[in-house]
Amino acid sequence: MSFNDHLRDVQRQRRSLLCVGLDIDPAKLPEPLKGRPDGVVEFARAIVAATQDLVCAFKPNLAFFEALGRNGWDALRRTLDVIPPGVVTIGDGKRADIGNTSARYASALFTEFGFHAVTVNPYMGSDSVEPFLADPEHGVFLLALTSNPGSRDFQRKRVGSGRLYEAVVRTARKWNTRGNLGLVVGATHPSELKRVRALAPDMPLLIPGIGTQGGDLRASIRWGCTADGDLAVINASRSILYASSGRDFADAARAEALRLRDAIEEQRHHFFSE
Amino acid sequence: MSFNDHLRDVQRQRRSLLCVGLDIDPAKLPEPLKGRPDGVVEFARAIVAATQDLVCAFKPNLAFFEALGRNGWDALRRTLDVIPPGVVTIGDGKRADIGNTSARYASALFTEFGFHAVTVNPYMGSDSVEPFLADPEHGVFLLALTSNPGSRDFQRKRVGSGRLYEAVVRTARKWNTRGNLGLVVGATHPSELKRVRALAPDMPLLIPGIGTQGGDLRASIRWGCTADGDLAVINASRSILYASSGRDFADAARAEALRLRDAIEEQRHHFFSE
Repeated sequence: MSFNDHLRDVQRQRRSLLCVGLDIDPAKLPEPLKGRPDGVVEFARAIVAATQDLVCAFKPNLAFFEALGRNGWDALRRTLDVIPPGVVTIGDGKRADIGNTSARYASALFTEFGFHAVTVNPYMGSDSVEPFLADPEHGVFLLALTSNPGSRDFQRKRVGSGRLYEAVVRTARKWNTRGNLGLVVGATHPSELKRVRALAPDMPLLIPGIGTQGGDLRASIRWGCTADGDLAVINASRSILYASSGRDFADAARAEALRLRDAIEEQRHHFFSE
Repeated sequence: MSFNDHLRDVQRQRRSLLCVGLDIDPAKLPEPLKGRPDGVVEFARAIVAATQDLVCAFKPNLAFFEALGRNGWDALRRTLDVIPPGVVTIGDGKRADIGNTSARYASALFTEFGFHAVTVNPYMGSDSVEPFLADPEHGVFLLALTSNPGSRDFQRKRVGSGRLYEAVVRTARKWNTRGNLGLVVGATHPSELKRVRALAPDMPLLIPGIGTQGGDLRASIRWGCTADGDLAVINASRSILYASSGRDFADAARAEALRLRDAIEEQRHHFFSE
């Protein structure tokens, strides 16, 4: 089964479009875990346990594991170990390099760590993306329009009759010959999200920027989903991870994840039920 | 001292613009090391020992270490351990993400591993690059025009009156307020290399694509160097690493590095001595 079909099935079975991003900053650990050598892993595993029935996906952010040094990859592996097999895992590393190098990243992420999908940067073009797409069961979310202020510097530059991110979307449609390519589009850009969905009616959209970054949830569902109300992946990280800095951090994370999952389902029902 | 000044000093003292890229594929190890658990590290250390007096820099490619799994970071550290302090180290990972995440990558690469410089992808814009530039002693090589076929997909798209990679170069000049920003420009594009040098007369250019990828060495020196004949960093990887697959691999790598270092110095003398 192609990754995009797999993602749709998971979202329908679990009745959730929510993805929890695991961007775990040691400096922000809750009091009971702060300064403990395994604090990051214990925190990550507690967040997974507290929210796993509410999500379609978890998205570990590789930077935060890399920054742990030699223990980082072990921490990542021990986090992935507790994610239930029915939940999609997205390795968020925004990698890409010339073809023979991208093949090594793909091997690291899909084979060594067993991620179902990864995020990839489009700047280096086709041969830098292709190695990640080779197996239809492995998914790719290609950066189109990101949620950060810097998205204006290049992504929105005028290219021909459109913008650079639109050129990326059009090109990505052509590259999606195996049904395993999606796009990253920030929730902080509702009108552009609508535009991307119009250009790519059937591709998964990974939508960060809900929560701390202030993205628009209603527009993210309305325009992030396909016509059948699927394939938007709504990511929240900090608003869930750091919902409380006390002993109740896991309960608080669960409560925030539940609130967001239900808010998503309400909008989804509103826009997409007959 | 800013990174760019440091790089210039190293190149003058060592009389070399050559950078050896450590893109070490376990499948391509020479016969005596093939299949050994520490084969990649032994090979990397042997290559460093055989070539270190001929180079201004080594550029470990992070993908090849990541693909080793949990031992990968250890292998990278043990490789860095044998690089002499006077040689510049460039962590080639082409990272970049939203600001708080780029800060973690910067911490991993500069603090955990101690790289002098890193390669960074420009697609996500200013706040994704800034954390790598915060310390003037740490250098950044921002991807402008890469050496691979996919560089045509987006980097050469027409943007306003120029191309996307030219917009990246112009923007990078503005970001270079601390004297620690350079650019990556493939040796496979001589006329564009000339264009980049005209747009950025004083910035370091990291030039991959010499050797296996068939880049133009003469043009790389003529247009890659500043008016004083400095700050081109000429990278070769596979042509040096895999110069021989037998027991003589280190000697063969040294011979190829020596040949290339001297060919570079000859061109440099031709174009830049009074």
